[in-house]
Amino acid sequence: MKSAVWYGQKDVRVEEREPKQLQNNEVKVKVSWAGICGTDLHEYIEGPIFISTDKPDPFLGQQAPVTLGHEFAGVVEAVGKDVTKFSKGERVVVNPTVSHRNKEESVDLYDGYSFIGLGSDGGFAEFTNVPEENVYKLPDNVSDKEGALVEPTAVAVQAIKEGEVLFGDTVAIFGAGPIGLLTVIAAKAAGASKIFVFDLSQERLTKAKQLGATFAVNSGEEDVEAFIADHTDNGVDVAFEVAGVAPTLKSSIAVTRPRGTVVIVSIFGHAIEWHPMQLTNSGVKLTSTIAYTPTTFQQTIDLINEGNLAVKDVITDEIDLSNIVESGFEKLINDKSQAKILVKIQN
Amino acid sequence: MKSAVWYGQKDVRVEEREPKQLQNNEVKVKVSWAGICGTDLHEYIEGPIFISTDKPDPFLGQQAPVTLGHEFAGVVEAVGKDVTKFSKGERVVVNPTVSHRNKEESVDLYDGYSFIGLGSDGGFAEFTNVPEENVYKLPDNVSDKEGALVEPTAVAVQAIKEGEVLFGDTVAIFGAGPIGLLTVIAAKAAGASKIFVFDLSQERLTKAKQLGATFAVNSGEEDVEAFIADHTDNGVDVAFEVAGVAPTLKSSIAVTRPRGTVVIVSIFGHAIEWHPMQLTNSGVKLTSTIAYTPTTFQQTIDLINEGNLAVKDVITDEIDLSNIVESGFEKLINDKSQAKILVKIQN
Repeated sequence: MKSAVWYGQKDVRVEEREPKQLQNNEVKVKVSWAGICGTDLHEYIEGPIFISTDKPDPFLGQQAPVTLGHEFAGVVEAVGKDVTKFSKGERVVVNPTVSHRNKEESVDLYDGYSFIGLGSDGGFAEFTNVPEENVYKLPDNVSDKEGALVEPTAVAVQAIKEGEVLFGDTVAIFGAGPIGLLTVIAAKAAGASKIFVFDLSQERLTKAKQLGATFAVNSGEEDVEAFIADHTDNGVDVAFEVAGVAPTLKSSIAVTRPRGTVVIVSIFGHAIEWHPMQLTNSGVKLTSTIAYTPTTFQQTIDLINEGNLAVKDVITDEIDLSNIVESGFEKLINDKSQAKILVKIQN
Repeated sequence: MKSAVWYGQKDVRVEEREPKQLQNNEVKVKVSWAGICGTDLHEYIEGPIFISTDKPDPFLGQQAPVTLGHEFAGVVEAVGKDVTKFSKGERVVVNPTVSHRNKEESVDLYDGYSFIGLGSDGGFAEFTNVPEENVYKLPDNVSDKEGALVEPTAVAVQAIKEGEVLFGDTVAIFGAGPIGLLTVIAAKAAGASKIFVFDLSQERLTKAKQLGATFAVNSGEEDVEAFIADHTDNGVDVAFEVAGVAPTLKSSIAVTRPRGTVVIVSIFGHAIEWHPMQLTNSGVKLTSTIAYTPTTFQQTIDLINEGNLAVKDVITDEIDLSNIVESGFEKLINDKSQAKILVKIQN
């Protein structure tokens, strides 16, 4: 079957691979659509980051070469003999996170986790086998394309929950990449009354405005703190740092009201220079989010199903699996107007 | 009247000064005891920090030279004609913080504030005049000496409140200076079930143990993270950073359980190198505390009055005002066994 396989930095090959043997607890998914995640892109540009190259992944047991893709939906093709909840033909989406699942879900991921599609073969393939507990049914109102967007949307939904955004709150989002844009959609759905988005790319800001941002401001041209001061009483209630660099973390804290919260959503690549007195002098609380709980994953499906989250609007291109390198990874590097590129796998 | 006056770095003079004219809204306090704060020490060693030298203090209108002392208690000597709540002879303690007081107290200080004893003449003098709203009555069970400890104790009480310490929680405190020691006392009174204290000074650790620490550990000799891992399930519920350096902030986060809280109590002197992924990977929340609210100040008096806080145990020396430089500031610099030195002003 055709698969997009990571062999190393700048070395992703679309090639034929043999399907794996289906285990008793597994569901074989015939993949219809899969999204390219920023993480996939980073593995392509500067990996390995999450991918294990010298020993088996501690949770999933595989090491490179590995078939990428952890945002995907499709149809059940077959089920292992211990699988009870799914049957052939059902439309499903996969929660790719694998962890110990021996503590309550709010703390479970902090004992470590891995992703199907990084620690083992994922969804950029015609078929992939996943444990039953990672499979969720897609309700009628959620298309397969939307199903492929559940995973990144769950990251945004979890971020909103971590920020404890309340109905009517004002929100600032630093960074209008795919997760930032989905955070706009989620903040809107959570009832934020004003949503400020900051980015350096005018194309992304235009997209943010289309998706529901009240203000989409170029932080290279405008004074971010002055802008927020002009449009709020004392700063926003909650800010989301979705750019992963020191200046945006500092700005996130600077624009948040006393007793408000900054949520670090980004994966920071390295240590930064930072003054802890920024918290002491502002009374801002700093928290973070990582992935999502199973509950949040299900809630995300339900929110899309109910029409609360118009996630399809983040899709900027649809490509074929065979073109994933040129029309996917390379395009995301070179074209800042791209947000989410979906890969068509099978009908 | 005899006063200890800050003129500049390493230049604090005990000299005669004229008492100031009492304003209509002011209470003249005959000071009995006053404590030396770390802030006073820093002004002596490396000031000016809070003291204004080139223009009037924005809240209190004075500039150096200024009589130090913002932890003090005494007896009402006289009252201005608009003062309604106090009369001559009453025992009182002064809340030295002055701010706009035009927002609710939980956010008020984040619009700026100053201290009587830094921004204007304070309690290292035989008499000092303070606005009525800064004066609090001392109940019978709170001695004048304890009164002089209310201010630093209120810092610790506020820190515990910011950390949202719950009955039975485990707590780690990094730094066993006066505020760290008072945080031990406050954590104990708030019902912490295990209190871990880390410091590099054996003398301070011994004091911490006397004041209620369950474990007082030399962080230069023991592996802090391993120690906490051995004595808790998943880390402490709340950690307090009371040392103000990068390694203790990192350790504070490292020893805290997922979804636990680190409270920055220190005043950090400069920016640090820090990796935001420390929060993302641990699920720890980072917050801070600054001074205290008027409510916390009153609660601190009440807690001492009820016998919940044995604050007197932090006193390591009692000296005369005339010796404040040699027996106070210089001693605190050179003798790490010192915690809180009280200055006797008048009988």
